[in-house]
Amino acid sequence: MNPKLTIPLPNEHLEKLESDFLYHLGINSKTTNFEKEFGDVKFVCMGGTKNRMFELAKYLQKVLGLRGELVDLCEKAHRYAVFKVGPVLCASHGIGMPSMSILLHEMIKLVSYAKCKDPIFLRIGTSGGVGIPVGTVVVTKDAYNGYIRNEHELAILGERVCRPAKFHEEVYTSLLSCAEPDDDFKTILGNTMAADDFYEGQGRLDGVICEHNEQQKMEFLKKLHNHGVRNIEMEATMFSSLTHHIGIKAGEICVTLVDRLQGDQVTQSNIPKEVLEQRPLTMCGRFIKKHLD
Amino acid sequence: MNPKLTIPLPNEHLEKLESDFLYHLGINSKTTNFEKEFGDVKFVCMGGTKNRMFELAKYLQKVLGLRGELVDLCEKAHRYAVFKVGPVLCASHGIGMPSMSILLHEMIKLVSYAKCKDPIFLRIGTSGGVGIPVGTVVVTKDAYNGYIRNEHELAILGERVCRPAKFHEEVYTSLLSCAEPDDDFKTILGNTMAADDFYEGQGRLDGVICEHNEQQKMEFLKKLHNHGVRNIEMEATMFSSLTHHIGIKAGEICVTLVDRLQGDQVTQSNIPKEVLEQRPLTMCGRFIKKHLD
Repeated sequence: MNPKLTIPLPNEHLEKLESDFLYHLGINSKTTNFEKEFGDVKFVCMGGTKNRMFELAKYLQKVLGLRGELVDLCEKAHRYAVFKVGPVLCASHGIGMPSMSILLHEMIKLVSYAKCKDPIFLRIGTSGGVGIPVGTVVVTKDAYNGYIRNEHELAILGERVCRPAKFHEEVYTSLLSCAEPDDDFKTILGNTMAADDFYEGQGRLDGVICEHNEQQKMEFLKKLHNHGVRNIEMEATMFSSLTHHIGIKAGEICVTLVDRLQGDQVTQSNIPKEVLEQRPLTMCGRFIKKHLD
Repeated sequence: MNPKLTIPLPNEHLEKLESDFLYHLGINSKTTNFEKEFGDVKFVCMGGTKNRMFELAKYLQKVLGLRGELVDLCEKAHRYAVFKVGPVLCASHGIGMPSMSILLHEMIKLVSYAKCKDPIFLRIGTSGGVGIPVGTVVVTKDAYNGYIRNEHELAILGERVCRPAKFHEEVYTSLLSCAEPDDDFKTILGNTMAADDFYEGQGRLDGVICEHNEQQKMEFLKKLHNHGVRNIEMEATMFSSLTHHIGIKAGEICVTLVDRLQGDQVTQSNIPKEVLEQRPLTMCGRFIKKHLD
């Protein structure tokens, strides 16, 4: 199907499919006209929860001067929530790389089948900081995995495959330039570590299992800092490696809710969580506005 | 806190915590009396979506002859949905091991702090079958990772750690014995492969990237079959290894929605999806009823 895609996908098998059912989105190319419904999409914004993506969609309506009821286009599939605001899709990806991976595969197919032109993928999220004040916004340059390597590791047909985990320079440079002198928070460029769990995988001492001590944790966090890592979350290597491999422009903006050099529990800040969580949304809104103008 | 736990946790740091904020559940030991609210819990049932866990909770109300409005106890945290039906917690874990890992860490802390006695953890889910008819219910014995090894691999402080991924014999034997002669589906014991993605990691040909061919896919699936693997999902190695390590009894029951030896897309069956998805719920209901009687 769709022999002339605007985003060439490195999978020749797709050409032989008569139709494609994007199972976890609940959208079937047999019954949905992708070009008509999604052909105008220029940005795909993703974040963890349905709630935050609804907030983002509402915020982008304001920023772009658009109106209309926000409908979750994928509600029937019960997995991800997807809202459309003019040329922007706002989609929840859940927690972690396997969850985001499914959304990303199906969302890239969607914009590809819809013949969107050069869409930009953004992730906005929360994260743990490494040696920076709580509330800092980190724009990611390179993503590091749990072995402090700038790559994403996955098992394919029983073999270990590693792919470079780099974000697009044009996107992170442009995201950084969206910071304004009057902002009451700092926006920095840094590397991001993506872990496969919140507790042991991020060196925390407060999971149900812990076989390391405070000193070993601090050594690990300092090692990360020496690699330019300024925050830790759970999606960046998969997100950057998949988009990089296909040649899609992608970027990531996360606020930090904790400074891991000070502690593990997410209760450090005096700034309300809502205020912190708005920051990457603000940056995302500025970026989209700038690129549409 | 809680020096005399009924479930000893292999983490001495927890004893030093004054309080514990189960961040992704939005439950704080400072403000919630765990023993009072959750001390009666005997079963923790987990599945992917909030929707399915609500269905399970409703179904268990019927099975156990209980009534009452079902309230999502973790709604404020926007991550996981948790319903309580008498001695059973029904919790959504999202998709994939990182997502489930967070729920599991915090849920095990919860039942441990609540001094629950010998709670049993069950996962009910959907999966892709390997060489068995669509609609078969698979009770998992051993879990295999993407490298076809009976272990779970995770990165801790930059090092690769592997832990055995075994379910509890008492639980899977008991689950199997819940099958009834009049069932219009088969229930079998098998091994389960847990992948970190739905497309490349499960050998599918219909992801946005695919660097293998049909023949290589079939060879991989047959190799899995030779290792006793009868279904593929995205949680089993993490779930079994974490519970095994702590000594918690755990089991998994999944229905198959597709036979991967016949194809990749989840559109094979003539049986309605609702009917298929009910099967692991039915088995779960029988198991709980049997253990409470």
